[in-house]
Amino acid sequence: MPEETFRERVYTIIFHSDTPGGRRFDVILLWLILLSMLSVFLESVASVRKEYYPIITAAEWLFTIVFTIEYILRLYSYPRRFKYFFSFYGIIDLLAIIPGYLGLLIPNLQYLLVIRALRLLRVFRILKLTRYLNEGDVLKQALKASMYKIVVFLATVVTLVTIVGTMMYVIEGEKNGFTSIPTSIYWAVVTITTVGYGDISPETSLGQFLAGVLMIIGYGIIAVPTGIVSAEMTKASQVALKPCPKCNNLVSPAQARFCSNCGEPISSSQPSA
Amino acid sequence: MPEETFRERVYTIIFHSDTPGGRRFDVILLWLILLSMLSVFLESVASVRKEYYPIITAAEWLFTIVFTIEYILRLYSYPRRFKYFFSFYGIIDLLAIIPGYLGLLIPNLQYLLVIRALRLLRVFRILKLTRYLNEGDVLKQALKASMYKIVVFLATVVTLVTIVGTMMYVIEGEKNGFTSIPTSIYWAVVTITTVGYGDISPETSLGQFLAGVLMIIGYGIIAVPTGIVSAEMTKASQVALKPCPKCNNLVSPAQARFCSNCGEPISSSQPSA
Amino acid sequence: MPEETFRERVYTIIFHSDTPGGRRFDVILLWLILLSMLSVFLESVASVRKEYYPIITAAEWLFTIVFTIEYILRLYSYPRRFKYFFSFYGIIDLLAIIPGYLGLLIPNLQYLLVIRALRLLRVFRILKLTRYLNEGDVLKQALKASMYKIVVFLATVVTLVTIVGTMMYVIEGEKNGFTSIPTSIYWAVVTITTVGYGDISPETSLGQFLAGVLMIIGYGIIAVPTGIVSAEMTKASQVALKPCPKCNNLVSPAQARFCSNCGEPISSSQPSA
Amino acid sequence: MPEETFRERVYTIIFHSDTPGGRRFDVILLWLILLSMLSVFLESVASVRKEYYPIITAAEWLFTIVFTIEYILRLYSYPRRFKYFFSFYGIIDLLAIIPGYLGLLIPNLQYLLVIRALRLLRVFRILKLTRYLNEGDVLKQALKASMYKIVVFLATVVTLVTIVGTMMYVIEGEKNGFTSIPTSIYWAVVTITTVGYGDISPETSLGQFLAGVLMIIGYGIIAVPTGIVSAEMTKASQVALKPCPKCNNLVSPAQARFCSNCGEPISSSQPSA
Repeated sequence: MPEETFRERVYTIIFHSDTPGGRRFDVILLWLILLSMLSVFLESVASVRKEYYPIITAAEWLFTIVFTIEYILRLYSYPRRFKYFFSFYGIIDLLAIIPGYLGLLIPNLQYLLVIRALRLLRVFRILKLTRYLNEGDVLKQALKASMYKIVVFLATVVTLVTIVGTMMYVIEGEKNGFTSIPTSIYWAVVTITTVGYGDISPETSLGQFLAGVLMIIGYGIIAVPTGIVSAEMTKASQVALKPCPKCNNLVSPAQARFCSNCGEPISSSQPSA
Repeated sequence: MPEETFRERVYTIIFHSDTPGGRRFDVILLWLILLSMLSVFLESVASVRKEYYPIITAAEWLFTIVFTIEYILRLYSYPRRFKYFFSFYGIIDLLAIIPGYLGLLIPNLQYLLVIRALRLLRVFRILKLTRYLNEGDVLKQALKASMYKIVVFLATVVTLVTIVGTMMYVIEGEKNGFTSIPTSIYWAVVTITTVGYGDISPETSLGQFLAGVLMIIGYGIIAVPTGIVSAEMTKASQVALKPCPKCNNLVSPAQARFCSNCGEPISSSQPSA
Repeated sequence: MPEETFRERVYTIIFHSDTPGGRRFDVILLWLILLSMLSVFLESVASVRKEYYPIITAAEWLFTIVFTIEYILRLYSYPRRFKYFFSFYGIIDLLAIIPGYLGLLIPNLQYLLVIRALRLLRVFRILKLTRYLNEGDVLKQALKASMYKIVVFLATVVTLVTIVGTMMYVIEGEKNGFTSIPTSIYWAVVTITTVGYGDISPETSLGQFLAGVLMIIGYGIIAVPTGIVSAEMTKASQVALKPCPKCNNLVSPAQARFCSNCGEPISSSQPSA
Repeated sequence: MPEETFRERVYTIIFHSDTPGGRRFDVILLWLILLSMLSVFLESVASVRKEYYPIITAAEWLFTIVFTIEYILRLYSYPRRFKYFFSFYGIIDLLAIIPGYLGLLIPNLQYLLVIRALRLLRVFRILKLTRYLNEGDVLKQALKASMYKIVVFLATVVTLVTIVGTMMYVIEGEKNGFTSIPTSIYWAVVTITTVGYGDISPETSLGQFLAGVLMIIGYGIIAVPTGIVSAEMTKASQVALKPCPKCNNLVSPAQARFCSNCGEPISSSQPSA
């Protein structure tokens, strides 16, 4: 067996978490990410920044340099570099270091380093917490299955807030805080989603009446996306399918005694709970 | 074959989107609508209006005139004019140009031109995005099926906010912002829908207690419309069944070619959508 | 056939809406109730009250006297007076006139005349809108079936807001608006129900953190009552039962070919949709 | 039969509510807990505290001493002391007296005596209201069954508010109230949960746009936990099935005595609760 090259060793440690070295690497990475996010949070607090500015800046640069080296090593060791570069995780890894350098040119941009939060996703995957990701897939599929319905729902909401927002702009006018149609649409979104900041609120009787109607509509249509997802989830959790032994058609042993495609008898060894 | 008249040619271009000319017409229309809405939005922003008033006014008049010509052509070319005039789209097409002219007489009314947003609905239909409209129909049917329940629910909410609103007017009084019963009912709607602007809020102990009870009731009954729609959707997404001709077992002709109980072939005359 | 006495005639007109006279009476009553509520609303608006005080007061007294006469006639004509007096509608009819007289002694109490809104319930029933009341019964049963779960849920919410409210009182203190434990509990209810007036809001870091946790909990547990009612409704809308011809046991013809109690074959004439 | 010792008698009265003495003890305990919570509430109201300080303080000490004696008696009489000490109720009983003593050292800590609310849980159990606790268990199981999905959901929400909060800090800046990243994350939580205090709200156009998007996302994803719990509840309320011994058709032993497909008798060994 030939000796492992340096590049292969790096690859194993960085990308394979089922070796002792890889596991140690992942745990260290997890802590580095959390610490680097903490330092970004702390820098943004004025009182902390005044007191500890040099230390925090030093820490942030340290994390950015470490993550840059890690990124270069990943790019160096991965067999097909382009594939990694354009992969989901490759892009996140890059985005997690760029704001550190851009912060030198444009102030405040270094705060976007919190995008490192997305890197935690990989650690999740690596630490064998795939069960959680699987559940995430179930959620994703339920959302995907109701995609069309959700698009229709969102289009309805957008049309509604556009028209109601404009009506409120005409009714309330600039003196009551509805300073422009975009602002009024913002108000309509704040209202229909039941957030209700109160930074803008209707003051004329007609405006309050229209706002009340919008609220009750919003209260009613919040039922729609919930209904969509509930129905999808109920369906998803009811259907436990397996392929027909003869024609590979998916059937539910809990509900069928014959394949609904070819008529082959189906054995229902263990009924789904 | 006789030569196509001008009127027929116009009809084909405007109403038929399956010809190259019709398709081009629809795409141009889509952009014109979006641009005209943008110009209405921009006019309402004070700083933009001050700077670019002549340009924006000119643009709005241009759009209004173009849409007026389009409306006349539609009316001219459609075989049965009255039917178009009183159709859903005919009314929207008319409403989309009227505020432009009324804005000359009554200030601010031109903003209602955003009603053009509804015209986008037709473009949706034309661009073969009918799948989305079908899903919209499913939503509409689910809402229609639970119509009675929703009316009962709304009547309950209206009665509740009327009585609680009046009680709060008596308890809190005009000095705490509950200036009249209609205003107090507005407050009750803001509260029960969990919007909660905070422009009016109770300040006496008894008022805060009653408000708290109203909130928890509101929080509880938000479950009701959601439950209604969820149940309706779950039912709708469970496929229409018919009995197997041999064993009477209920099967779904849309999904099964053989009865899952006895293996009898099932004819799927019209599969449910 | 003996002549109808005066009392019987009154009874027929007031309580039987299936005669022409009864129907006319109900329609007039509906309008009187709506008008009397409008006059109460208008009296509460300061500008209207200043201008039209004598007219509105006169109108209110007129309505109160008319409803008092109606109440006396109901009591007089109904065969079993005590039964009417203590019935649901009897109590509402009485409550709908009392505040008018009490308003002479205690100011502002006349506003409670809006309790007349509840009288509309009877008109609903009378006008043969019973379909709506039936649907209301379905809702009531679904709520009743999940009674225990809802009580447990409410007890959890009350315990949670008590403890979190007190913690916030200790953390934020009186200087940040959390002036007492009852007020802090009020704040916790405002927050957990996602109403969020903003009249009281945390200002310390620890308080904001705890508030954030409470919000996410509230956001999560709003799912619980909805889930309860959805499940109940789904169940209610799925089960369409009829009695077994042999043993009267309730079975679902859509799902069963034999009675699950005695084994009698069940004919499934029309499968439920 | 040997005479009951004092310790055994105490044990019976305190821990067994099925004897007359035990029952009386529980009712007294229930009232003492409620009264002690009321006195804590009243102490926190400034006007009441000023007026009645000595009385309230005396009452609080009285309750604390009584509960301390009760705790010592519980510890003394329970057969296996360590088991009680570390049990759920044992810890709550201890927590319900500690703040009373700590309040001498650290001001305001005595308010945490409201933790006594949790003691009411035991009284619930004792008073044979176990039906409510059973329903609570059903809720707990439904939540447990959807544990993984809820963790994934919460992780998504936390990541989302972290990133959006930081973006808003960069966009709006400290002058508009977004004074630090933690504060901005707090704002994002307030917004995504639709609480919307309005103590901090975006003022730039870009900030308002981003806030609007966040609200609609929040409005949409509120559907997810509800969908999860609804599906779980629907499943839970659909009874456990097992195959018919003769025809393999799935039947519910809790509801059926004969197979609904072939008429075979079904043994219902242990009906599911």
